[in-house]
Amino acid sequence: MNQLKIFSDANLSESAFELLKDGVQPLELVLPAKPAASVLALAEPDPAFATAEIAFGQPDIESVLSSRKLRWLQLSSAGYTRYDTPQFREAAKERGLFVTNSSSVYDEACADHVFSFMLAQSRRLPVSLATRLPNTDPRWMDLRNSYVPLRGSNVLILGYGAIAKKLRALLSPFETRITGFRRKPRGDEGVPVVTAADLPAALEKADHVVNILPGSAATDGFLSKERFHTMKPGAVFYNIGRGSTVDQEALYEALHSGHLDAAWLDVCDPEPLPKNHPLLTLKNCFITPHTAGGHRNESATLVRHFLLNLRNFLDEEPLVDRIF
Amino acid sequence: MNQLKIFSDANLSESAFELLKDGVQPLELVLPAKPAASVLALAEPDPAFATAEIAFGQPDIESVLSSRKLRWLQLSSAGYTRYDTPQFREAAKERGLFVTNSSSVYDEACADHVFSFMLAQSRRLPVSLATRLPNTDPRWMDLRNSYVPLRGSNVLILGYGAIAKKLRALLSPFETRITGFRRKPRGDEGVPVVTAADLPAALEKADHVVNILPGSAATDGFLSKERFHTMKPGAVFYNIGRGSTVDQEALYEALHSGHLDAAWLDVCDPEPLPKNHPLLTLKNCFITPHTAGGHRNESATLVRHFLLNLRNFLDEEPLVDRIF
Repeated sequence: MNQLKIFSDANLSESAFELLKDGVQPLELVLPAKPAASVLALAEPDPAFATAEIAFGQPDIESVLSSRKLRWLQLSSAGYTRYDTPQFREAAKERGLFVTNSSSVYDEACADHVFSFMLAQSRRLPVSLATRLPNTDPRWMDLRNSYVPLRGSNVLILGYGAIAKKLRALLSPFETRITGFRRKPRGDEGVPVVTAADLPAALEKADHVVNILPGSAATDGFLSKERFHTMKPGAVFYNIGRGSTVDQEALYEALHSGHLDAAWLDVCDPEPLPKNHPLLTLKNCFITPHTAGGHRNESATLVRHFLLNLRNFLDEEPLVDRIF
Repeated sequence: MNQLKIFSDANLSESAFELLKDGVQPLELVLPAKPAASVLALAEPDPAFATAEIAFGQPDIESVLSSRKLRWLQLSSAGYTRYDTPQFREAAKERGLFVTNSSSVYDEACADHVFSFMLAQSRRLPVSLATRLPNTDPRWMDLRNSYVPLRGSNVLILGYGAIAKKLRALLSPFETRITGFRRKPRGDEGVPVVTAADLPAALEKADHVVNILPGSAATDGFLSKERFHTMKPGAVFYNIGRGSTVDQEALYEALHSGHLDAAWLDVCDPEPLPKNHPLLTLKNCFITPHTAGGHRNESATLVRHFLLNLRNFLDEEPLVDRIF
């Protein structure tokens, strides 16, 4: 096995890169001529790629498909929309290529992020932090009365996977009623799960709609005008999935009309939104720049997760976070 | 008992007032000539007060002390600094006057509020919501790496009472290590509790210092320059107790020098801070306007809590939230 080469175009901190270099020994680490622009950016084709049995990062799809050596690819992201084509899946299957992602690395941080949105919404932090109202001003009492506790509310989670399970744990002290939506329920969700047929009823009664759907042809524009209309007046919408799953014009209407109380988005389409985008003009739309998965020492966690799977791969044990 | 009169200067919403009027029947409700300026403001002396056996609100202290009829006073706030004098305590004791507050009404909301601060700090919401950084900008990765999960952190809670217990429940999924500080530990706290002697060691290791101390002569300036110095570099300070417990000049220094990562305050001294106050110039000081106890239908909860205690009073059962 010592002859195996690992190609990595993962965009890492210096210390995490040292961790990777040390951790893969005695295997050889092969680097691209040009480093990746970001952890989310697709790398450019690189001739060194063809020499590697293992790849870690966001390699160019054509290079993956044309490699004769590659046996395992670990993506450095949780999302894998760009690799999720019938052609890619079929090619992987035919050649016995294992494909894993790094979703475990980001699950907790993503759950924390959307949970922080829910708490900030409950306590109206953006407006509360921006005011110095004295307690004699009638608007002060209005502000206090605008705080809606999470306790006992209905939470609908679209895309009930690993992040949703983490979120459920964080919500547990609030005794919310959680419903999941999944195209294919597995039965191990631990909460009631609806499929497309029962989604309208679930949307009607949810106080909080948390979208964690991945990007794909099937989820494109999933949050449509009709689905926003179906939501309960005063509901709050959260998105930490993918921007492509939302009809943003419909979202704008739902927020502008006041039908929805607020939206909290970590993702949109495109990212970042252009300066003059309508969503940016709304007082009830709060946006973070696709940082939900971020956390201190993220790079190191990413590398440790890869090294763990490398051990599994070399020992011919099942790989963690396998997607194809 | 039907002859009892209830004086209320509590500042209530219309619907909550109706609830009170209906709920006290057949007892007589007596109202002041001039309504209270706010739920926190001290009411003016009112001649009607002297006719009542029961009072609900924030009545004038002299009126309470000089009343010959008053047998029970329920304050409409959780804080009771202005009533907490040796003279008042003694007078209450001598005359067999029961004094209760409304802390149960605000406990959950206060815990939610400071918890939302902790999550917003962990996910750096103020800066994250204010940026549209593209993922190719190095500052984008810096932002992601600045998120510090709450998991496993050391939380020190100054003033370990009812709010602290609620906060502990909310923090439980994060497996934080919670230490309480209390002048007189009762042994029922469920977490390690330190007293003044061991406080420096607790301050040294805390990642999050949550202040819930009430205002009193004993807590005046409790968060002193020395105590801020003792805190761990990079620690975060939260205050939902009283502004008077903090040496604000020392807090400013600790924040300005970067010794503390950030402060999140719901209370300060005075409230609101004057426009040009140094704390308002800091990028790492986040302030809400004393709204931590606020929540939807707060007024109604306040009235229901009073009516519950009224039942206890009439039945000669122990009163909830008794302070003297």
